Amino acid sequence: MSEKVEFKKRISVEQVEEGTELAPKFDDNGLIPAVTTLAATGEVLMLGYMNKEALEKTILTGEAHYFSRSRQILWHKGADSGFKQIVKDLRIDDDQDAVWLSVELLGKDASCHVGYRSCFYRSVPTAGDHKKSDELIFREREKVFDPKQVYGDVPNPTKL
Amino acid sequence: MSEKVEFKKRISVEQVEEGTELAPKFDDNGLIPAVTTLAATGEVLMLGYMNKEALEKTILTGEAHYFSRSRQILWHKGADSGFKQIVKDLRIDDDQDAVWLSVELLGKDASCHVGYRSCFYRSVPTAGDHKKSDELIFREREKVFDPKQVYGDVPNPTKL
Repeated sequence: MSEKVEFKKRISVEQVEEGTELAPKFDDNGLIPAVTTLAATGEVLMLGYMNKEALEKTILTGEAHYFSRSRQILWHKGADSGFKQIVKDLRIDDDQDAVWLSVELLGKDASCHVGYRSCFYRSVPTAGDHKKSDELIFREREKVFDPKQVYGDVPNPTKL
Repeated sequence: MSEKVEFKKRISVEQVEEGTELAPKFDDNGLIPAVTTLAATGEVLMLGYMNKEALEKTILTGEAHYFSRSRQILWHKGADSGFKQIVKDLRIDDDQDAVWLSVELLGKDASCHVGYRSCFYRSVPTAGDHKKSDELIFREREKVFDPKQVYGDVPNPTKL
């Protein structure tokens, strides 16, 4: 096998759903969503996006690469923070328009730019609980790292 | 609390990231991506999308609702197949543009229209493994149900 990744042409539903050819579908912006979970616990760490180059680099290196929508650049996760994601398993879904990375973390157990372990650090009350209160509930109380120390003056990626 | 869900206006990064107000960001198509995992195992079952109505109904009922992009309709998961998803925990991410549902399944342990338990039933080889073979590897060998029996003539949602 070469040092390139070949994305196959999408020919039929059967090929895409039941085949062994990698034929991912990128959206109108050239992106595919990527769910990242912590291999040891199954916790969802983040939902990111990859362009072709990011998916190719992830496959070739075994380290998670994303496309930063706020900065519009290829983003080797952990290049700034040191918290790299080592891919233990990369999955693709039935219609090949989403991927799932199960990862181990290097450095601190942290993936979220706000300083928490997971980006999903708050719960939304549902059903009967929602009737009692509609306020978000923090599931992580303490930050794992100080974003100011790690990122310095890098602009916050959150957009309103 | 009323039988409605109030989505707050997004005012500041601090409110969105560090607050307890639900202020989700829907994309240009009015959708927010939703990752769904199996509560018992952490396995990612599917990546779907919700519009405002789907997120509202999920919060109010505690049962997963999505917006079907292929059919362009609100989609109460399991209404056709019987395989409903009962939400054990609903999370929202740092910038509130993605949600994570941890669910239990009713009926069979199945979430994928192709018949598998998870939509992510194939792995993509990475790094050294990719050099040996670039073919997708099936991680589920047997289908949990027969899609023809469950869905009959409902059109396949996969688009090329």
